[in-house]
Amino acid sequence: MSEQLRARLFEALDQIVLVDPHTHINAHAPASTTLADIMGYHYYTELAHSAGMPIARIEQEGLDPKEKVGRLVEFLGTIENTIQSSWLIEMVQTFFDFPDEAITPDNWEALYDRSRQSMAQPDWAETVLKRSKLSAVFLTNEFDDALEGFDTSVYVPCLRTDDLVFHLAKPEVRTRLEKAGGIALGDLASLRSAIGKLFEHFVERGAKACAISLPPDFAPAKIDKGAAESALTEVLRRGPDASGEQLGTLSQAVFWMLAEHCSEHKLPFDLMIGVNRGVYAEGVFQGRDLYDSRVSLIQYRELFNAFPQVMFPISVLASVTNQELVSYSWIFPNVLTNGHWWYSNTPTYIAHDAAARLEAVPRTKQIGYYSDMYKLEFALPKFAMYKRILAKILAERFVVDRGWSEERAIALGTQVLRGNVDAVFGPF
Amino acid sequence: MSEQLRARLFEALDQIVLVDPHTHINAHAPASTTLADIMGYHYYTELAHSAGMPIARIEQEGLDPKEKVGRLVEFLGTIENTIQSSWLIEMVQTFFDFPDEAITPDNWEALYDRSRQSMAQPDWAETVLKRSKLSAVFLTNEFDDALEGFDTSVYVPCLRTDDLVFHLAKPEVRTRLEKAGGIALGDLASLRSAIGKLFEHFVERGAKACAISLPPDFAPAKIDKGAAESALTEVLRRGPDASGEQLGTLSQAVFWMLAEHCSEHKLPFDLMIGVNRGVYAEGVFQGRDLYDSRVSLIQYRELFNAFPQVMFPISVLASVTNQELVSYSWIFPNVLTNGHWWYSNTPTYIAHDAAARLEAVPRTKQIGYYSDMYKLEFALPKFAMYKRILAKILAERFVVDRGWSEERAIALGTQVLRGNVDAVFGPF
Amino acid sequence: MSEQLRARLFEALDQIVLVDPHTHINAHAPASTTLADIMGYHYYTELAHSAGMPIARIEQEGLDPKEKVGRLVEFLGTIENTIQSSWLIEMVQTFFDFPDEAITPDNWEALYDRSRQSMAQPDWAETVLKRSKLSAVFLTNEFDDALEGFDTSVYVPCLRTDDLVFHLAKPEVRTRLEKAGGIALGDLASLRSAIGKLFEHFVERGAKACAISLPPDFAPAKIDKGAAESALTEVLRRGPDASGEQLGTLSQAVFWMLAEHCSEHKLPFDLMIGVNRGVYAEGVFQGRDLYDSRVSLIQYRELFNAFPQVMFPISVLASVTNQELVSYSWIFPNVLTNGHWWYSNTPTYIAHDAAARLEAVPRTKQIGYYSDMYKLEFALPKFAMYKRILAKILAERFVVDRGWSEERAIALGTQVLRGNVDAVFGPF
Repeated sequence: MSEQLRARLFEALDQIVLVDPHTHINAHAPASTTLADIMGYHYYTELAHSAGMPIARIEQEGLDPKEKVGRLVEFLGTIENTIQSSWLIEMVQTFFDFPDEAITPDNWEALYDRSRQSMAQPDWAETVLKRSKLSAVFLTNEFDDALEGFDTSVYVPCLRTDDLVFHLAKPEVRTRLEKAGGIALGDLASLRSAIGKLFEHFVERGAKACAISLPPDFAPAKIDKGAAESALTEVLRRGPDASGEQLGTLSQAVFWMLAEHCSEHKLPFDLMIGVNRGVYAEGVFQGRDLYDSRVSLIQYRELFNAFPQVMFPISVLASVTNQELVSYSWIFPNVLTNGHWWYSNTPTYIAHDAAARLEAVPRTKQIGYYSDMYKLEFALPKFAMYKRILAKILAERFVVDRGWSEERAIALGTQVLRGNVDAVFGPF
Repeated sequence: MSEQLRARLFEALDQIVLVDPHTHINAHAPASTTLADIMGYHYYTELAHSAGMPIARIEQEGLDPKEKVGRLVEFLGTIENTIQSSWLIEMVQTFFDFPDEAITPDNWEALYDRSRQSMAQPDWAETVLKRSKLSAVFLTNEFDDALEGFDTSVYVPCLRTDDLVFHLAKPEVRTRLEKAGGIALGDLASLRSAIGKLFEHFVERGAKACAISLPPDFAPAKIDKGAAESALTEVLRRGPDASGEQLGTLSQAVFWMLAEHCSEHKLPFDLMIGVNRGVYAEGVFQGRDLYDSRVSLIQYRELFNAFPQVMFPISVLASVTNQELVSYSWIFPNVLTNGHWWYSNTPTYIAHDAAARLEAVPRTKQIGYYSDMYKLEFALPKFAMYKRILAKILAERFVVDRGWSEERAIALGTQVLRGNVDAVFGPF
Repeated sequence: MSEQLRARLFEALDQIVLVDPHTHINAHAPASTTLADIMGYHYYTELAHSAGMPIARIEQEGLDPKEKVGRLVEFLGTIENTIQSSWLIEMVQTFFDFPDEAITPDNWEALYDRSRQSMAQPDWAETVLKRSKLSAVFLTNEFDDALEGFDTSVYVPCLRTDDLVFHLAKPEVRTRLEKAGGIALGDLASLRSAIGKLFEHFVERGAKACAISLPPDFAPAKIDKGAAESALTEVLRRGPDASGEQLGTLSQAVFWMLAEHCSEHKLPFDLMIGVNRGVYAEGVFQGRDLYDSRVSLIQYRELFNAFPQVMFPISVLASVTNQELVSYSWIFPNVLTNGHWWYSNTPTYIAHDAAARLEAVPRTKQIGYYSDMYKLEFALPKFAMYKRILAKILAERFVVDRGWSEERAIALGTQVLRGNVDAVFGPF
């Protein structure tokens, strides 16, 4: 009975056409061309490496894609318990009619060849989008991306700002900003003007959000003009050799400026809170970041109060921060819950965190899920995982525990899966 | 089967006559007079505001109660997923025979009028108490409350001490204390005497607990007499302009003094740990407080060791602190678990936290639940929520997983719901 | 159906012959001789004390074992809800055919006498091992343990190093080290030599791990040679009166040396992270330790990067740290999850933590469980608890949610219960 109820709710949620509000898709190469694009996803390389695969085996210069997949397959057995492995299997079963329950040294080659053929179809990306019921996906664009050569109604630009806030001291970042902003950096006014140009360009090209990932010790603050000006001067003069204090002050000043521009341009500002970069220095590409879960949204108190007109869809890296996110979203009109990020994007944590949100945050303020994918094929299994968990929560906590009708539960699920994406970022 | 088991256990627990060990009831106006008293509860105003309702719409000077309800109803749809909304619906269905599943612009007015009639009955408070199976409720009394004009065996006084510990620097608080304590404040001895008078008055009038809410960075400590004396002198001289250090020292000294008086008067000292006040400065009335979940009971180590004879029923604001509470209650004879407070008073967190307590803290040391209500009508749906969760835990974890008989499980539930309230605070 | 599935999986897991990778067994007296050995376990004494039993009642000089049990039985009713109580009941039902559901003042004496007879059998330890399907158990040996007089293939030595890292300033610890290490301590070289001797002795005697428990504020770091040398000189000269800074520096230096020796001797280094000792000074024996859950594995960043060749099976004291453990084990090849420790060794936390591990950490990198027991009789009920939870997770999250076959789920369970113990520490 309860299993059937879950299944019915899942079926209903699975009909929804989705807009994926956060991905790392390259709009010029959105889908995979070989299985190496899929299995080269950092989730697989880092798990395989964690299970014992030497990095050199997969990050070898000029490694042939097929050879790379063959090497990764050797380690799939050690990670088949992971939910990431289940995404892979569901993906190849769905897109390439893979008939087995595991990819092994015995069956991978046939899969590789068959999938190669599918991916070689000229309309493969469209096929994947359609099969995945995706009408649009957000990108993660460098601030100096030209945003040209793709359909921005399907591949929606999003201004990613980590470099501006944390790496402006690097000569190459400064140069890129001066070029994209059309002005030489000198004082705060020039910086503001350059950043303003980025926003204008992005908004003109259909950007629907500004986004940034933040380390656990970051605390936004409005910086006094004099202090900001002198920090900028120092950083422009000394680059990465500027003092930690000056670098930190400039980070805060730039961050605040971004919030001001979001306000002016009515762009939501996605905050992804809690990551420490490069913790495992010898890790695989994109597999070096971890975190300190001792972070609090109290660090964002000044920001949330200062920008009541800016919407802040917030992702937290650790599940232990989720209750704060629930509470802050319940109190602050401009704070929203946004997806289940990275290390919290596994069923145990999604189930606990999503249930808490669904029962205490206004239904209009929850962006249920985004895929965070690098290649289009991942949306289907990742969203399917989320929809199964969502169906279970709706079945148990709303239909059974609270006596809701199935229709009402499905409407709630539909809103967090799609409706709020439209309302917060859209229309699409 | 399991659903039926849960239902049977709930039915049994639902027969228990309750004493509610923490509320904000006004003994002189315990029940609601209009639906505005109910829907004006900060849970609804803050959620509606979070979902977009401007504060001015509900905090307008001289706003008619019916008009206020009408305005709030506009936003109920956006928060109908919340557990707080389910309390409201269960409440009006129970007390006012509301026939629908949601309060809408179409049906609220009839409900308003019908409920107005019920509430106008002279014995409405008694009716609510009886229907809710409540024999007594604890109050939250200002330290200078006269405690007169009500039946203290039904409305049980509780000495709330936040003002004494955190706001003694304010002239009005000092004046109130000097008046209630019958002595002009000068040195520590006068302060101790004044506070002693409050305890005598409260105990004489049937108070059963002393209580306080505490910010996450508070750490009780025994202050050296000289340091305390000089902090008091300074604070009395300079008021709120005293240094943060002097203010902090005095807070610790007063807190310690309260614990000493609790010891002397054999009063349990309810500690509600973890709230930051006024985080969202522009929030609705009572909807401005949030928290930093980075708090530890290790901050209370000195206190728990110093007062083995004082019972400390403890509430923690964040679920991430609950395991510490479980562990400290398992080790310290004077530490007890107390209810599910505020932002942790939602089913996902209650379920996780209560299960952990039930399986690792002596059964005699758990106060299962309190309503924290401002109006009597709320006890019924809030306790019902808790009893449903408790029944589920007992069914799954005790009857199914551990093979307990239903009788034994019900006895355990009865003890945490009622028995321990009598044992710790009573008799009643 | 789901209940039956759980039961079938449990039955399969319950057939596995186990090696228990962490206990406090005394190899010279591994099993109990009276029920006082069992009920004197700190879980019972501390819970009984927490529920009101004065320490003097059970820590009285020369107290007769039977009298001690009788006194503890008075308090068993108050803690019968605890999972620790369920271990006791399952244990006496299994080993001594106890027919009741609770040990009471009416039935304990017969149990005491009957169990006394069983325990008096000369092969009682072997009987318990066999009945518990245990082929070997790890010990926790003081660094100067002679490791003689027992079968190290059944009672596997493990070098416990808390004293070396945290108490070397104590004259008696220094003396013990000088004796065991065969060298007078003077400079770092002598310290390194002494510790090297310990490792040689332990490895020669079949030790399979080095282990330590660590307070929440400990952060390993490679100490500059000069600083380490001067800290050692100072600590050797002044003992416990050395400055906190010098003591801390020496702790870090010794810890780093241990990791170096683990590397050299290819021993896994068990880290048990998060305990504060002696928080409740007046507690019962072994019932005084608690914790501050504000700890992060980021504190171990330098260590994990510096010793890629050392395996670190890690236990965390608080469930809120478990997600970090999952993530660090998913990224770092040398970080493994290890059991469910102490205050997290209760079903609610095990279920949440184990599920998160099983779905995100390579299956080869999870040591499912250890008993932490002091007497052999405890392995059976403790492992049974874990196996029941494991069976539930495998049933719900793998067989039902992910469509795994039962065989595949059992194989995963078998690997975390036994296979990885062999792979990481073994062979046995």
